[in-house]
Formats: sequence, C-alpha cells, structure tokens
Amino acid sequence: MKRKTVVVALGGNAITRKGIPDTIQNQFRHTRESLPPILKMIEEGYRMAITHGNGPQVGNALLRVEMARSVAPDLPLGVLVADTQGGIGYMIEQSLQNGLILKGVERDVVTIATQVEVDRDDPSIKDPNKFVGQFYTEEEALKLRDRLGWTVKEDKGRGWRRVVPSPIPLQIINGQTIRDLVHSGKIVIAAGGGGIPVYRENDGRWEGVDAVIDKDRASAVLGLNIGAQILLILTEADGVYLDYGTPDQRKLRNATLEEAKAYLEQGQFPKGSMGPKIESAIQFLEGGGKKVIISSIKDGFEALEGRAGTSMI
Amino acid sequence: MKRKTVVVALGGNAITRKGIPDTIQNQFRHTRESLPPILKMIEEGYRMAITHGNGPQVGNALLRVEMARSVAPDLPLGVLVADTQGGIGYMIEQSLQNGLILKGVERDVVTIATQVEVDRDDPSIKDPNKFVGQFYTEEEALKLRDRLGWTVKEDKGRGWRRVVPSPIPLQIINGQTIRDLVHSGKIVIAAGGGGIPVYRENDGRWEGVDAVIDKDRASAVLGLNIGAQILLILTEADGVYLDYGTPDQRKLRNATLEEAKAYLEQGQFPKGSMGPKIESAIQFLEGGGKKVIISSIKDGFEALEGRAGTSMI
Repeated sequence: MKRKTVVVALGGNAITRKGIPDTIQNQFRHTRESLPPILKMIEEGYRMAITHGNGPQVGNALLRVEMARSVAPDLPLGVLVADTQGGIGYMIEQSLQNGLILKGVERDVVTIATQVEVDRDDPSIKDPNKFVGQFYTEEEALKLRDRLGWTVKEDKGRGWRRVVPSPIPLQIINGQTIRDLVHSGKIVIAAGGGGIPVYRENDGRWEGVDAVIDKDRASAVLGLNIGAQILLILTEADGVYLDYGTPDQRKLRNATLEEAKAYLEQGQFPKGSMGPKIESAIQFLEGGGKKVIISSIKDGFEALEGRAGTSMI
Repeated sequence: MKRKTVVVALGGNAITRKGIPDTIQNQFRHTRESLPPILKMIEEGYRMAITHGNGPQVGNALLRVEMARSVAPDLPLGVLVADTQGGIGYMIEQSLQNGLILKGVERDVVTIATQVEVDRDDPSIKDPNKFVGQFYTEEEALKLRDRLGWTVKEDKGRGWRRVVPSPIPLQIINGQTIRDLVHSGKIVIAAGGGGIPVYRENDGRWEGVDAVIDKDRASAVLGLNIGAQILLILTEADGVYLDYGTPDQRKLRNATLEEAKAYLEQGQFPKGSMGPKIESAIQFLEGGGKKVIISSIKDGFEALEGRAGTSMI
C-alpha cells in the first residue's frame, strides 16, 4: 500500500455539468461517471480526503428558501452549506462505496460535516464580493437588503445579486480527527463547499458567518492540517495554461513554487478561475506540502502518477 | 474517566418546541438550552454518540422543494435526510463545542453523515404508512401521486398527505468508524433523523430508498453496533407511564426487559409515541445492551445516574 496521502479537490463538473439539467438523477450519474480515476487511486493504496464544490446545490437551496419564505423559516448560508455537505457527501460517499464494492476493494468511506475557521476581521467580511443566488432588479434587491440585511451589488450589468464574504480559510476545525481517519485508511469526504465558515468569539466560542469559502483554498488548508503530501485539484481544464486564450497559449507541464509565483505575479491566471487554484497551490507548497497537481477529472489518476496535467513542486 | 459508552437520542423538542416558531435562531437557542445535561455527562467522562430527530426540518425541506419545483430540481427524501444531518449536526456540534469551550473541557465533537441499512423487502416499503409533509385536498394529492409517483393517503379526516415507508433499521453503515471514534473519546453526532435509508442491491451495491427511519430504533441499532452499554432516550415526558391518561396513571421507575415486554403486549404504550421507544429499548437490551433510560431532556444527567426517568435493564 502506498503511504502517500492526497487531498482530492473535486471540481463542480464532477457532479453537475453545464447545459445538462441538474436533476438529482443526473447529479448521481455524473458523480458515478467521475469516480473511476479516484477508485483507481484508492485501489493503488493512496490515503485520501476528498473535498467538493457546492455552487449549484447551494444556489438551488437559496432559491428554495426564497420561494418558500412565506411557509418555512429562512436559513443562513452557513446552515445551507452544512446541508449540502450532508447531501452531496452522501451522494459521493455512496457512489464511491458502490464502486469499491464492485471492485472488491475494502476501504471505508465516511463523510464529515466540517466547520472551517476564518478571521472575523477578514477584509472580505467588511466588503463582501462573492455573488450568490439569483438575479434581481435594483428595486427588488434593495428591498431584500432592507428586509433581510443582505449586501447587494450590481453584477456587471447583468442585474443585481446578493454578495457574501469569501474569507480566507485558516484551519479545519476537526482537522485532527480527519487526519486520524485518513491515516487509518478511511476515505474521508470533508470541507464540502469549502466548509462551514466560523470565527472565534472573544470568549473562545465558535460563531457562524454568512459567507462561502473557496473550495480549493479550503482543500489546501485541509491538506496541510492532515499532513497530506499531495493536493490534486480536479477541474474542467486538463491543466494550467500560460498565455491562455492567446495565439501563444501553451500548457504548463511542470513548475516550481517560484515559477508558479512568478507566473501569478505576471497576471497569467484569471482571478475568478485559475487564480485561486494557483494561490491555493502556493499556500499548500509554502506550508510544507510536497506537490500540487491540477488536471481534468478524467485524467486524474494519470496526473497523480505524473503523466498528465500540471505538476507544481 | 468513566469508560461507559452511552447513545443519547435527542427528541425533537431538544431543537424545536411546539407553539414556538422554528426560526433558525430559535432552533440554535433551544439546542443550547437543551445541552447542559449532555455537557455534564461529557464532563463526567462518558463516551458518547448523539442521535437526533429531523421531523420539522425535513418537513420544511419538503415544503421548500415543493414551492420551488418550477425553478429548482426535486430532491428525494434520502437526500433531504442527508441534508438535515449536515445542518442539524452542525447546529448541535457547534453548540456542544461552545459549551465545552466555556467549561474548559477538551473533547472533540464530530458529525458523520450516516447511511442506515434496511431490508428492501421490509413490509413498510410495500405498504408505506408514515405521513410526511403538508396536507392536500384529495384532488391535489392524486395529481401529485400521478406526477411524482408518491403514495398518498387520507390522514384521519384531516386531509390528504404523502406517506412513505418507515422500514426497520438493520445496520449503521459506518458503525465501525463511529465505534472507533467514540472509543477514542470523541463525541459523535450520527444517524440524524434515523439515518439515510439504503438497501443492498443483488450485486452488493447500496441504493437509497424514499423512506424515513424511526430515530429511536436507529439509536438502538447504533448503540449495539458501537458496543454502547446505555441507550438514553431524551424526550418530552419525564419517563414512561403505565395506564397513561387514566386516573390510575403512574410513572414507571424501573423495569426488567421481561416487564417491559409484558407491558408492551398489554398495549400500555401508544403506537405513535412511547411504543417505538419501548420497542427500541427491548431491541437494545435483547441485543446485548445493559440499560435503557427514558427521561426528559432536562433531567437527562440525573436519569443517567439513576435518579430520574425510567430505567430498563
């Protein structure tokens, strides 16, 4: 059994696909279809924690809360994230268990609802900038702001939306437990949707905050907290590109930490997509992680073995 | 440190109270108010798993899905149960952590999304009889039956409702992991809402079923699966009563397994309320558990120490 520990960060497209209705049947089907490379890693003996996104699911949850506001109580974003950790975790857990059963591989899969510590003074909490949920007219948006205390902003001429903070994750609250479980050979699904954001009150108590944490950043922190050697970020792209979208576009096969930092400073990676992944990679490597790999889901196993994707050391 | 392991089954009134709006603020407040007896048990060194109900929360979730059906995908009951395990688990977990922090007690609290095995041939699956969700007119109910494949029945002249199976739980899927965590001193929140019901396909794979499992029955199975000595069922009543609701009504302080079975056969316990709790108690004791205690939440610690509630051995 390989003793290496990997945190696998599953991109949204592992579960929902653009242009395909996000019915629960399709979500289960996409999850099943995404898992073969992960199953191969488990079969090869990697120790593993899995994180996942929750954008479409939490978007739907916000819609449901809103449509039912006259008959069912409102729910804060932290509780909705926790809900999706249960629901999506179950979907991935069962799909993985079934894949392992069919292969005859005995490894337990367990899903942990995960709080993640953020700084209550994170700049993002004072100036929220992450758009969530649906679009409104300015008038509707301002009404919701007054009624529910939301912060609302115009989303690049497409309409008004709610914005929430996206603070930097500092620590996985049950990191030690997850570490012990992973080291004992269990596959642990944790920090789903980036985790439930909480901060410390002055008296030491935890308090939730209406925010969302970037899933890849949380994965880097999880990796460091559980002593993982490898962070494997699985996404739609088959790797990291330089001069992306220009005639000079080329795939980066390998990079050192210093090279990755230099490319980031050059502005090579768009803020909304590859940027946070590279920043997460840098944080993981600077914190003591050995390797970060960015790859498509399909090529995940090949990438982990160094034959696909982009590797950073 | 006392080495005894207890499964604490938290009744619905630990989180929501009749006549008080089930806003999330009230749910958090009731949870905090319910926890002092549990905190005392932890302080005294009991090893512990905690289960909880999810009736009001899953009812609200069903309402939200229904109200938003035109804009967000439908979700099966199993996924909704999984969602509530995340959300309610987070609420209990954080409230417990904060109580422990204020007391200076170092014990980890961890929430596990939990599948529970049921028999695919459970009689309840062929003849569902557990009412869930809201009331409809007969016409609406039959339309929903045709559109969504629901089974619908009339609820004692109060209107038509959806009915789902309530199969008997056989096994906690991650029972061994929960056992290891509890034995290492962690407080584990598991099998919330009775667990996510799943059955074995012929090829060994797990498959979800639209059903709900009785929380107390799941707690008994959890207790047996993790080797707990004590099952502590915390509810609204301060114990088990004989001849309940008659002039001869009296509280049962102690009973043997044989006495409990005799009272049950006499029809002493109403089917919808105390009956399943006594049946769960019998199952736990017959399976090797040492003691079952039924008590109010407020008296939970006293009851665990033998000074309140009803004890069955």
